[in-house]
Amino acid sequence: MKYTAHINVMPLKELLDPQGKAVNSGLHNLGLLHIQEVRIGKHITLNIEANSKEEAEQMTQEACKKLLANPVMEAFDFNVVEG
Amino acid sequence: MKYTAHINVMPLKELLDPQGKAVNSGLHNLGLLHIQEVRIGKHITLNIEANSKEEAEQMTQEACKKLLANPVMEAFDFNVVEG
Repeated sequence: MKYTAHINVMPLKELLDPQGKAVNSGLHNLGLLHIQEVRIGKHITLNIEANSKEEAEQMTQEACKKLLANPVMEAFDFNVVEG
Repeated sequence: MKYTAHINVMPLKELLDPQGKAVNSGLHNLGLLHIQEVRIGKHITLNIEANSKEEAEQMTQEACKKLLANPVMEAFDFNVVEG
């Protein structure tokens, strides 16, 4: 069966996010003064051919741990849906 | 009231995503052969001080259009939640 994984990889809360800070300033310069605490990470979608949702989730977890997220600096979460 | 916006900015479906292709190959090299069609975009979270959810959504939309997404190459969607 086909599954789609939606993965978010975000910088750890404890760490500074310079890209987020820069975008925060940019938004303020554009007049959006009520926006704060911008944090920027990655959103990854991928298709998986697997026998069950559990298997697809296991493969997604493995992909995140082995390649997609750097555990020193990033945390990930994901959601696997059918189709 | 405080709101949090979760924004996804993804490369348009019609366009090649070279970063996604590279990660796809990387995952195959790691033995994850059942993963296909990797696409990589940005996930952005930000806090908004607004009077209503509608106002927060409007500000998020404005931030996406003015700075966060490049409409020539990217599409965005977002979800605003309280707190």
